[in-house]
Amino acid sequence: MTLTDTNSWTGIREVLLRRIHNRIWQPGELIPHEADLAEEFGCARTTVNRALRDLAESGLVIRKRRAGTRVAINPPQRATLTIPIIREEVESLGRSYRHSVLERNLRALPPMLHGAFQVSLSEDVLFLKTLHFSDERPYAFEERHINLDAAPDARDLAFNEISANEWLVHNAPYTHGDLSFFAVNADETLCRKLDATTGMALFAMERITWAGEMPITHVRLIFAPGYRMRTEI
Amino acid sequence: MTLTDTNSWTGIREVLLRRIHNRIWQPGELIPHEADLAEEFGCARTTVNRALRDLAESGLVIRKRRAGTRVAINPPQRATLTIPIIREEVESLGRSYRHSVLERNLRALPPMLHGAFQVSLSEDVLFLKTLHFSDERPYAFEERHINLDAAPDARDLAFNEISANEWLVHNAPYTHGDLSFFAVNADETLCRKLDATTGMALFAMERITWAGEMPITHVRLIFAPGYRMRTEI
Repeated sequence: MTLTDTNSWTGIREVLLRRIHNRIWQPGELIPHEADLAEEFGCARTTVNRALRDLAESGLVIRKRRAGTRVAINPPQRATLTIPIIREEVESLGRSYRHSVLERNLRALPPMLHGAFQVSLSEDVLFLKTLHFSDERPYAFEERHINLDAAPDARDLAFNEISANEWLVHNAPYTHGDLSFFAVNADETLCRKLDATTGMALFAMERITWAGEMPITHVRLIFAPGYRMRTEI
Repeated sequence: MTLTDTNSWTGIREVLLRRIHNRIWQPGELIPHEADLAEEFGCARTTVNRALRDLAESGLVIRKRRAGTRVAINPPQRATLTIPIIREEVESLGRSYRHSVLERNLRALPPMLHGAFQVSLSEDVLFLKTLHFSDERPYAFEERHINLDAAPDARDLAFNEISANEWLVHNAPYTHGDLSFFAVNADETLCRKLDATTGMALFAMERITWAGEMPITHVRLIFAPGYRMRTEI
């Protein structure tokens, strides 16, 4: 008797996972055929198939049409990062959120972004500096460039009610984006905005998103002292 | 005529994605039935089903058994982080890798890890300081505690040939782990190890992994100046 529900594919996955983790099935080893596993668990073959597909998608097993299924030798260690809207991130911590637009103007795309945007934008872009607060304390300082070709309505918005971060998610959805994470030393501006002391190490993120070939926005977020980005594997 | 291959599920997914991104199907809107889509694309219903399942797994559509499929209102922005073995990360950049064990000893679990390990470990843990190099330049400085109950063979290993990072992935596979990313100022030790100047902001990662209920290892990695962790959404 087992405590695991082997009628559901998640139950089967659980059992298979345990065999892989406990080295009952060694890395590189061929595991039993789908039909044999279905017989062992007394379940439908499609249930075993669903579980194996999931393990294959996580990189834990390698399936080959004729050669069968093997335990992966070097399973990749993958973590999923959820990139929430900042308001939602703050509120999920049980804190109150507000933001303040510090600067808003139209300007030519700065040269440092020519490479990132990978297109020559003839028109001006909208530049915004926004400070995000958590319980009235600075949470993150945001500098953003918005391509008005991709989000023409942004030209007439002050972004006082809804942050550009949130507005763009809803009004200029992207197909893909690049993210990078790094550390910066607080300069004088950042010290004032984020209640940091000069030189303090701050966690930073840069993100650029596209709708197909068209860049939508480039954003650089610098978080207040002590920020940690957390995830699970 | 379309350039997209609507005989493959990835081709169908491409078309459906475009409809969602171009707001042909609005957030919250019910999309056509699987059978109708199969007819439209002239493909098997299972092909449409596979595409929809993939979109559902990415959080872009919500499927309910009787109620049909709706476009998600707030699609989560998820990024997948691959956490490679450091040797593989360096080599994938076309650089040569080596590591050097700077310190290795048995010690009681330090109090700062009691919370993270969430168990009272009666035995000593193995403590290691390792410096990772990329093309002979410092790449990352690692401090690691290994639970010898979870990886008893580690007691007799010097980790000069293979780093503890790589050895553990192969010999003490984990079921899950917690990761966090943050910024630290270089202190004197880090300056010497990582060719940094005092106070420089450095990117850092902490990771703890478990096999079921048993903690395997806690590691803190601090990367050399200029390091960026990159990913895509």
